[in-house]
Amino acid sequence: MEKPVTLGIGVIGTGNIGTYHVDRIASRLSGAAVTAVFDVATERAREVAESVGAATRDQDLDVIHDPGVDAVVVASPGHLHADQVLACIEAGKPVMCEKPLATTTSDALKVVEAEVAAGRQLVQVGFMRRYDQGYRQVKEALDSGSIGEALVIHAVHRNPSVPESFREFMAITDSVVHEIDTSRWLLGEEIVAVTVRSGKRSPHALAKDPQLVHFETESGVLVDVESFVNCQYGYDVRCELVGSEGYAVLENPMLSASVTSGGRRTTVPADWRERFDSAYGAELQAWIDGVTTGRYDGASAWDGYAATAVADAGVRALEEGRTVAVDLVDKPSFYAGR
Amino acid sequence: MEKPVTLGIGVIGTGNIGTYHVDRIASRLSGAAVTAVFDVATERAREVAESVGAATRDQDLDVIHDPGVDAVVVASPGHLHADQVLACIEAGKPVMCEKPLATTTSDALKVVEAEVAAGRQLVQVGFMRRYDQGYRQVKEALDSGSIGEALVIHAVHRNPSVPESFREFMAITDSVVHEIDTSRWLLGEEIVAVTVRSGKRSPHALAKDPQLVHFETESGVLVDVESFVNCQYGYDVRCELVGSEGYAVLENPMLSASVTSGGRRTTVPADWRERFDSAYGAELQAWIDGVTTGRYDGASAWDGYAATAVADAGVRALEEGRTVAVDLVDKPSFYAGR
Amino acid sequence: MEKPVTLGIGVIGTGNIGTYHVDRIASRLSGAAVTAVFDVATERAREVAESVGAATRDQDLDVIHDPGVDAVVVASPGHLHADQVLACIEAGKPVMCEKPLATTTSDALKVVEAEVAAGRQLVQVGFMRRYDQGYRQVKEALDSGSIGEALVIHAVHRNPSVPESFREFMAITDSVVHEIDTSRWLLGEEIVAVTVRSGKRSPHALAKDPQLVHFETESGVLVDVESFVNCQYGYDVRCELVGSEGYAVLENPMLSASVTSGGRRTTVPADWRERFDSAYGAELQAWIDGVTTGRYDGASAWDGYAATAVADAGVRALEEGRTVAVDLVDKPSFYAGR
Amino acid sequence: MEKPVTLGIGVIGTGNIGTYHVDRIASRLSGAAVTAVFDVATERAREVAESVGAATRDQDLDVIHDPGVDAVVVASPGHLHADQVLACIEAGKPVMCEKPLATTTSDALKVVEAEVAAGRQLVQVGFMRRYDQGYRQVKEALDSGSIGEALVIHAVHRNPSVPESFREFMAITDSVVHEIDTSRWLLGEEIVAVTVRSGKRSPHALAKDPQLVHFETESGVLVDVESFVNCQYGYDVRCELVGSEGYAVLENPMLSASVTSGGRRTTVPADWRERFDSAYGAELQAWIDGVTTGRYDGASAWDGYAATAVADAGVRALEEGRTVAVDLVDKPSFYAGR
Repeated sequence: MEKPVTLGIGVIGTGNIGTYHVDRIASRLSGAAVTAVFDVATERAREVAESVGAATRDQDLDVIHDPGVDAVVVASPGHLHADQVLACIEAGKPVMCEKPLATTTSDALKVVEAEVAAGRQLVQVGFMRRYDQGYRQVKEALDSGSIGEALVIHAVHRNPSVPESFREFMAITDSVVHEIDTSRWLLGEEIVAVTVRSGKRSPHALAKDPQLVHFETESGVLVDVESFVNCQYGYDVRCELVGSEGYAVLENPMLSASVTSGGRRTTVPADWRERFDSAYGAELQAWIDGVTTGRYDGASAWDGYAATAVADAGVRALEEGRTVAVDLVDKPSFYAGR
Repeated sequence: MEKPVTLGIGVIGTGNIGTYHVDRIASRLSGAAVTAVFDVATERAREVAESVGAATRDQDLDVIHDPGVDAVVVASPGHLHADQVLACIEAGKPVMCEKPLATTTSDALKVVEAEVAAGRQLVQVGFMRRYDQGYRQVKEALDSGSIGEALVIHAVHRNPSVPESFREFMAITDSVVHEIDTSRWLLGEEIVAVTVRSGKRSPHALAKDPQLVHFETESGVLVDVESFVNCQYGYDVRCELVGSEGYAVLENPMLSASVTSGGRRTTVPADWRERFDSAYGAELQAWIDGVTTGRYDGASAWDGYAATAVADAGVRALEEGRTVAVDLVDKPSFYAGR
Repeated sequence: MEKPVTLGIGVIGTGNIGTYHVDRIASRLSGAAVTAVFDVATERAREVAESVGAATRDQDLDVIHDPGVDAVVVASPGHLHADQVLACIEAGKPVMCEKPLATTTSDALKVVEAEVAAGRQLVQVGFMRRYDQGYRQVKEALDSGSIGEALVIHAVHRNPSVPESFREFMAITDSVVHEIDTSRWLLGEEIVAVTVRSGKRSPHALAKDPQLVHFETESGVLVDVESFVNCQYGYDVRCELVGSEGYAVLENPMLSASVTSGGRRTTVPADWRERFDSAYGAELQAWIDGVTTGRYDGASAWDGYAATAVADAGVRALEEGRTVAVDLVDKPSFYAGR
Repeated sequence: MEKPVTLGIGVIGTGNIGTYHVDRIASRLSGAAVTAVFDVATERAREVAESVGAATRDQDLDVIHDPGVDAVVVASPGHLHADQVLACIEAGKPVMCEKPLATTTSDALKVVEAEVAAGRQLVQVGFMRRYDQGYRQVKEALDSGSIGEALVIHAVHRNPSVPESFREFMAITDSVVHEIDTSRWLLGEEIVAVTVRSGKRSPHALAKDPQLVHFETESGVLVDVESFVNCQYGYDVRCELVGSEGYAVLENPMLSASVTSGGRRTTVPADWRERFDSAYGAELQAWIDGVTTGRYDGASAWDGYAATAVADAGVRALEEGRTVAVDLVDKPSFYAGR
């Protein structure tokens, strides 16, 4: 009998996150196989490709144009994303782009304009938290009306440590960008202003850290985000959405506890893989399903553009020590309801 | 380029759990496709098969012998399991059998003997809790030595309600059988005696309910299990493993909380699907992987046999109102380390 | 102006718990002062008395008959309790007797009979858990009807360690006697049968430990109590009351958490003082208030008698390895509503 | 025999908090009795006085100078505090002043100067949270070094609702003033700058609410406080102290849970009495003990001055929409170690 058709996936970038996606597509998801891979680190690309029976290509465009590639995962360095996504749109191939969609607002806008011109949705941006069950419960609590109307969000985003190459603006472009997206998604409205504060530096930090980032949204919701990339103890992402009648709060998943003479102990996630593994899996499976059906429920190119614009404003707020307004173009009607 | 080989899976039984497995294999797991399906409810079988592009077969053996079937999932009524699993062994096809492996100890033993005679592992029994992250953490706490040596297990197994056809012995053969397996697996030793007590009956129950089931293991560990199949409020599975230096406890997964004037509220799983969805997924993916590699890490035929023998003793303990000893045959060396 | 009258309290026994009460009356409660003290350890008694400005007496009866003593706290060894309480009744002086009321059922019954003969309530038994806010919340949950009718209680009572003089029956007479009282109080009915099981012994234990004690009540509620007096890690008292529509559960009080690379840690109470300090305070203040008003809301002599009778049955159940029935005399109408 | 001496307490102000203190001194604390009472609401004052056997006086100074009054509790409206406390100092009588110590920084400074001139500690300010077990555990976690050096504090202070007379600056002077004190006390350093932000107003609020108040301390620790006085659902005070190696967090006390088909429910405190009843009791008992010994461990006049100065700056920050610096006089050596 006929076996079901398997979607061919091309993967650009085989660093940590790219390999993570390759492995998952090959061994834990349905309906897709990695068929072509590219990375400038050719040896690494070859190892990853071989481990899943995929071919290697000489450059990113070769992956995109490969006839065995039905859809593309972009997991390259961020400054390359926009061009690669634009090439996918031009080739008419669905693309799942890791955050950020682009490193400049103008580049992100080009993607939006290209997709609108193409007339069909081809781009999903990898804001995986939208697939996290806990975040979904927080959103459901708000959408159900039980906690009233949203007034404030308190968020915490902590990483145990960062490499020496880390620069303080990356706390905004790489870490807080997730809170930018979750805030917009939870609230269903745009962020209009950003302020960044920092104080005492952690003795483990080489740059300002922790930093407190404050957003204000169109309707006046205040969002606090603590970004702390050298917190030492684990990977800790939290979110409390305060409404006029109550609040909903994301908890660190806790499956068991152990009690000894040292007290009652539960674990804290070690890193983003442990914390969001299920969300990454759900995101990628939903995207694979979406490639077939043409319907996507993840973050759109517009979401990627808005996140980039807010992050840009945030970097300026950090550098200039003042509140910076976010200026977005009018949202194309194409994105209504996406 | 060559797409990876997809394993053909035959599924016997398309009731709740069978359909659950079919859907997952088709849409959420890697490396397998459902190719043939059988159920005595032929219309239902046809619908399920069509939904995933599989064929229907006229009887269970036809599924097993189908050349497009590389491995079999048995999800039929329990009294048919042993014969179907024996047929799989005879056909040399790996089989994942939903619990119970058999409804009588002697039938379960026949499966063990047949597999030993076959000389290679073909049978995995569907005790999915072994793949639950929370249970794994409890086991790790014990295995790490941090809580000392095991002394007592307290377990709770509650279902919101049961159909009218439910009989009180089923609390043992269908519900508590999971605690039989988890206790054996956590402790790494056999259960040697069973006692059942019941008292005041829930006004929602048509038979004795709740029931308290007590096990004693080879080394003297005492295991308490509350089985309550009409608890009304949700599906609630808990386990506290008490050691000489501390204890480890399974918690209900909690991802978010919502706070209103009614207090702080977290959800309780509605049913086994919600609670153990991830475990079922991990179990099935691991089994599919195992079919390829020949290495399985789930419950073996021996585990299925031992669970059936303890459940049998439990039913007698319930009927006769006394402590009943469990008599197992000597464990074949074939199962050492499985 | 006139200062309010202070009640004179005599304290018999200045061991751990006696001194604990003396200190509290002297320094943290209202309306009473310790005026006379006796202990066979005369030096210790003198130190305790001096620390609070009280006198020492040469024997227990001298405390009871002291004109400066308005009411008596009995904190002597348990086998002396009944005679001392009887002397208080005879002297017409209110008495707060630490548990147990007596070490034999017949002695406890004598106290009941004497109080009934006296015609007014003079005796309160020191089951302090009735004043614990957590236990009160569990009782309120049941009494409110929200969890339906009571069906099962699961209780845990763990102590870090016990002195060498500890004998295994003491687990019942000294530890589980608290669960006897809380079960009767929560459910508002008597316990009719007791069974004790033990299995693997903790390597830290000199006698059977842990032990599982099972009660059945008049209406058929099943009560499980794990007594573990060498649990090493802390003092841990828990109680889950399972009803036909839900359950209520006592938690270990948790006021803060600390999170480091070792995970999230909360404390476990070190001992009964830490866990029940507030309950002891509320109990003693309520009793002092009751001495003035003549109205008591703590455990009565009847409660002390019933607890002793159940504990007696439990000791026999332990020694004889069988279920032992509890035979209580008819409850005097004097105790209706107390 | 001689009964112990009871301290005579005068209470100025018999509103909510004054009556709360009167009742507690009379019925739940040791070593003191309320002897004289004053309130401009003379009828209310009479009722309160009679309920505890105290006398009423015609004005505040009469209470202070009453020979039966050994020490004074000031629970009048805030703008009267400074003068009443100054009168106590002049009379050489210890005084426990409810927060705030004064409503202007200059008045608070007068108290400090008067106490320094008096040469002995007479003033304690009613920041009761310093006696809350949860806050003490957070402080211990920091002081122990286990969470490293302090970097950030996140605090939440929510009240269910406020009377119509509430004005938005009161969120700072009446609510956040507690976080001002706890931050100073936890960190052991002064606050140097304040900023206030507000956004979308709760539909239940008549003034800006919620408000986000930000402090910076001498060493650069950043403190976020959400003040929300119309949160509807309960009284909710939380505090997370983030250090360089981990964090410590205050939890809402949770003593029991109840689980029904609506989920798992725990209570949220209804109001400040429920949440801080134990802390108020411990504070008042410690102060009474301190009157005798001359040693106090609560908030000093300096703490009251600093809190007033920061609150003043906060009100200006609110009104002027900018960051306002806090200018304190040099701390007198008198307060070293207090």
